[in-house]
Amino acid sequence: MDLKVELKKRVDIFNKELENYLKDGSPQTLYDAARHLPAGGGKRLRPCISMISCEAVSGDVKNVMPLAISLELIHNFTLVHDDIMDKSRLRRSLPTVHFKFGEPTAIMAGDLLFAKAFESMNNISVDFSVFKKVNQGLARCVKEICEGQQLDMEFEKRKNVTEKEYLGMILKKTAVLFMFAAEGGAIIGGGTREKVKALRQYGKCLGLSFQIWDDYLDMSSNEATLGKDIGNDIRNGKKTLIAVHSLNNAVGDDKENLNQIFGNRGASEQDVKKIFNLFRKTKSVGYAKNTALKYNAKAKKVLDVLDDSDAKQILIKLADYSIRREK
Amino acid sequence: MDLKVELKKRVDIFNKELENYLKDGSPQTLYDAARHLPAGGGKRLRPCISMISCEAVSGDVKNVMPLAISLELIHNFTLVHDDIMDKSRLRRSLPTVHFKFGEPTAIMAGDLLFAKAFESMNNISVDFSVFKKVNQGLARCVKEICEGQQLDMEFEKRKNVTEKEYLGMILKKTAVLFMFAAEGGAIIGGGTREKVKALRQYGKCLGLSFQIWDDYLDMSSNEATLGKDIGNDIRNGKKTLIAVHSLNNAVGDDKENLNQIFGNRGASEQDVKKIFNLFRKTKSVGYAKNTALKYNAKAKKVLDVLDDSDAKQILIKLADYSIRREK
Repeated sequence: MDLKVELKKRVDIFNKELENYLKDGSPQTLYDAARHLPAGGGKRLRPCISMISCEAVSGDVKNVMPLAISLELIHNFTLVHDDIMDKSRLRRSLPTVHFKFGEPTAIMAGDLLFAKAFESMNNISVDFSVFKKVNQGLARCVKEICEGQQLDMEFEKRKNVTEKEYLGMILKKTAVLFMFAAEGGAIIGGGTREKVKALRQYGKCLGLSFQIWDDYLDMSSNEATLGKDIGNDIRNGKKTLIAVHSLNNAVGDDKENLNQIFGNRGASEQDVKKIFNLFRKTKSVGYAKNTALKYNAKAKKVLDVLDDSDAKQILIKLADYSIRREK
Repeated sequence: MDLKVELKKRVDIFNKELENYLKDGSPQTLYDAARHLPAGGGKRLRPCISMISCEAVSGDVKNVMPLAISLELIHNFTLVHDDIMDKSRLRRSLPTVHFKFGEPTAIMAGDLLFAKAFESMNNISVDFSVFKKVNQGLARCVKEICEGQQLDMEFEKRKNVTEKEYLGMILKKTAVLFMFAAEGGAIIGGGTREKVKALRQYGKCLGLSFQIWDDYLDMSSNEATLGKDIGNDIRNGKKTLIAVHSLNNAVGDDKENLNQIFGNRGASEQDVKKIFNLFRKTKSVGYAKNTALKYNAKAKKVLDVLDDSDAKQILIKLADYSIRREK
């Protein structure tokens, strides 16, 4: 079984549904702006996870498609608004929505994607009790994503953040949508309580390892290829797991250096390199990698309660893939 | 029956529910930002309309409270994002959310209110078919509000807009939420198809007259008190019904003046006054007032199919009040 082939099958099905769903709308500019990111591609990880989780409990994947659409639209809505907040100009090698369409239209395009996500939920054909569970779940997800994003910003301004606080932040900012994708797919697929819980855990661990691996990849480049993003993250005091671990474990002069340079917007190129090297000295880069691997192993382990199936094998391979991917 | 007393009764009930609903949440700053506008007051027109519409079909107002909450949160979410787009610093005599908390937190506070609006919907106790109707209705409302807001922006850049286009824009931007408030209240109250339709029409006409009256009030001040807002609207080419009517009815030199000054950001104080007077010369201010009155009369007329009740009388008085209010 080839993961890429299996994913592509589902992505193709999903993309057709999505294209259809975003087809028409007026005024044109608003809908062009709303379509810009979702039509621009992306890995469709969240929709795929919901589809495969539904299959893993022997559900009919057709029933989960409206949820898959909602998940991708919510993901894209958060990207549109995040890019405005971060003043980013590029996303997936495309100009960001606000850079291309202006900020007012971008704010509204995000809101429109959000509204269409909740609209899509009404197309799910399930019992009322099941419907309420997933409809409620989606609203809670968005709330928690907002909370996580706010925490991420606030952490940048703080001198110190504990590992527990960091994990709580990325759980909300990133992992809840993976968690809900797997859980929602399993609920709609008619999974038992035990299997729904296992898939929820799978999504959570996958999301955590995904985010930590992202932080790790950024830092695993060697000093010579030290990118602009790393410099910015260090100057902004971005609390990745690497930074959190280093801040909590450095001693003596190293601690002093971290306190003075990390989060200092005026830090020189040389200072940035000093911190980059210090992250290795405190073994924080390796620590982050191991933590990602730990969550990854857990993601696979919790699937033990599922019966054997192609879907289960795909979920296992997807977990492995998510910590092998390069940027 | 005193309208103010009747409204206050319902506003008090609503405010207690809302306060409770927005009480807790972390991180504190995000929740403070989200609470800032809804806790700051407002007329609570939309919640009141949904409550009284429910009563008008002999429904139990308790059942409609989660919808009332949703309506007010959606209204406030659009205000938070609108203020960012318009770069406004004041709203209801308070600093706007982005002015007080910064733009990134304001964008997310709006998103959070949006999510909490959909979360609240899940607390409505009705049959699945009824639930889907109102849940779908709310998503459609937000979509249309985004579309209307985008049209409003696009109209500013256009030389000419027809009255039909203008009405279509304010229908989406303002009236749909009133329309849905009345319709949703009647649906949840268990109203017949005929009564639900009548209340939907009531909300629509009330919303249209409300928005046109707003435009009219801005322009009905005398020249001596000509405010900064009017000057800005004229310089920005804001397509109110007054402007639309004047642009479509001015001839000769007046037409020429309008074309040159209206929408010209560098227009002098004297030029602005010229346009202000021209709006009267083309009888556009009076036309807007009459149009608001016409929709107002229609709002009351469609209520004929309802049985007599206190609620019906309140709705009639509310329509009259909405075109008597001053800024």
